[in-house]
Amino acid sequence: MRIAFDAMGGDHAPSAMINGVLQAAKTWRDTEFVLVGTDEVVTPVLEQASMDHLSVRIVTEVITPEDEPVRAVRRKKDSSMVVGCEMVKDRAADAFISAGNTGALMAAGLFATGRISGIDRPALAPSFPTVTGGKVLVLDVGANPEARPEHLRQYALMGSVYVENGWEIPRPRVGLLNIGTEEGKGTTLMKEAYRQIQALPINFIGNVEARDVLEGVCDVLVCDGFTGNILLKNTEGVSKAIFSKLREEFTRNPLSKLAAAILKPGLKRFASSMDYKEHGGAPLLGVGGAIIKAHGSSDDRAVYNAIRQTRMFVERGVIQRISDDLERSEG
Amino acid sequence: MRIAFDAMGGDHAPSAMINGVLQAAKTWRDTEFVLVGTDEVVTPVLEQASMDHLSVRIVTEVITPEDEPVRAVRRKKDSSMVVGCEMVKDRAADAFISAGNTGALMAAGLFATGRISGIDRPALAPSFPTVTGGKVLVLDVGANPEARPEHLRQYALMGSVYVENGWEIPRPRVGLLNIGTEEGKGTTLMKEAYRQIQALPINFIGNVEARDVLEGVCDVLVCDGFTGNILLKNTEGVSKAIFSKLREEFTRNPLSKLAAAILKPGLKRFASSMDYKEHGGAPLLGVGGAIIKAHGSSDDRAVYNAIRQTRMFVERGVIQRISDDLERSEG
Repeated sequence: MRIAFDAMGGDHAPSAMINGVLQAAKTWRDTEFVLVGTDEVVTPVLEQASMDHLSVRIVTEVITPEDEPVRAVRRKKDSSMVVGCEMVKDRAADAFISAGNTGALMAAGLFATGRISGIDRPALAPSFPTVTGGKVLVLDVGANPEARPEHLRQYALMGSVYVENGWEIPRPRVGLLNIGTEEGKGTTLMKEAYRQIQALPINFIGNVEARDVLEGVCDVLVCDGFTGNILLKNTEGVSKAIFSKLREEFTRNPLSKLAAAILKPGLKRFASSMDYKEHGGAPLLGVGGAIIKAHGSSDDRAVYNAIRQTRMFVERGVIQRISDDLERSEG
Repeated sequence: MRIAFDAMGGDHAPSAMINGVLQAAKTWRDTEFVLVGTDEVVTPVLEQASMDHLSVRIVTEVITPEDEPVRAVRRKKDSSMVVGCEMVKDRAADAFISAGNTGALMAAGLFATGRISGIDRPALAPSFPTVTGGKVLVLDVGANPEARPEHLRQYALMGSVYVENGWEIPRPRVGLLNIGTEEGKGTTLMKEAYRQIQALPINFIGNVEARDVLEGVCDVLVCDGFTGNILLKNTEGVSKAIFSKLREEFTRNPLSKLAAAILKPGLKRFASSMDYKEHGGAPLLGVGGAIIKAHGSSDDRAVYNAIRQTRMFVERGVIQRISDDLERSEG
């Protein structure tokens, strides 16, 4: 298997990307790694760490977080993101991972590898850690506005296939994010999506309320990209707010600092259990190739875990399985 | 001023309602309080605490959380909720507060007091505590599906008037919940709402992302009822998840218990700062009378604070001001 990694994208690029890939290369010697980046960034890596299964692909351009996605992908043909996606298309790589501009990665992935036949719109599908120690795949959070019921039906099917194969959970529980648990709740979109998802050969458990998501009531949570994006960012915001208030209390006086020091291992364990970095990247489900978005603030640990998840994605042939299941459910 | 209070609604009814009202009656001797409830619930209160400015209104029916709102309001004419709203209509009370079935309170309030002229759809408007020690009014969270741009425009105006008068914040900062901060982001609904809100004579600061809400970037957050409901319940769910994981870490062994005991006052202060109970009830903005929803799990402290907030609402004549501002902005 060969995995290409964007050395240029992410808040902590390129160092976190390089270190994460080097760690992964040490763990998985059966996998070839290709660092995609500019000469001055990637060439020194080969001098630093010479491994047979690590190579570089030199590009001359970089897409920034500020770039308008579609324009950037059209103009910067020799950027790490466009080249990485082209490598997947040309089968020079089995997967491409980037922590850069999400919209641009989606556009580059679509331009290069197209969509899985039967999928109208791909979804960005990150996982949220739950209090039970598990996680839930949420899709779409990609800020795609104006979803139609069939998009949500396709998300449900893709999410179920991904979790069943990538996470090895048989018959994953699929829920629909809604404002009440009873059937018939919510907007016209939600009511019709409910009806369509119910007809799929998957384990649909019905509507799920936002307050129950982190309780681990389902393995896959289906939502439209607008609501999913609000859910994702609100989860980040609330966690951040609570941790910043906690930090205030823990450093209030010498005694509280001492107590906080005692609790530190537990708090670290706790913070790590709530941390996206432990939970791999977010696949762009529905695009024709294995293209994975790592979190923008990924550190080396997050990069490493995104690679672990990507290996599963490729090994299990998730894209082919989605395609097969679609054919079966439509036929 | 006379405030009617539903003794029957809420998870901790009737004891929390009675205790909260009694505390409020001790604080504000210039306000008349009317406890609305069944004979066996409210009559003993008068024996327990005889105060000139505390009276009861006996009813024979109760609307439960399980009741279908509109049907319950139509059938249970002598329920505490319907009678309380009728009291506001008949000017037997200046305001009515209930911690019961939200949908039923909205329906009863609308049937009894109608809408403010120029308002198409009232909004449920709770406040969220922010990390800066302030709060933000969020509307609508009432699970009203299928919002139109003019609904959001009306929410923006009502929210601004309420916060300016009820919270005494001059020219409150009004934001629109969206999936990006730039103008032109989001669904057709959001784009058009942005345009309409921008034309209002209020302090509109543009789009606000979900991750920044608790940072205190705005005083009023406008959203459609579907998204607002997801935001509210997700905020509850994430807080609950984090606190439950924290509790696990704090009780892991004798040493961590000791450390947690040292931190207890700080943690309590922190929990209280994040607690809706400190922040009063949620007005049903847009209905013709001052009708306030207290949180379903209100304890006596929450009841007391909802009363404090309601006094402001009535004293400042918020409804009249909304009506005046609407006329000015439409005319």
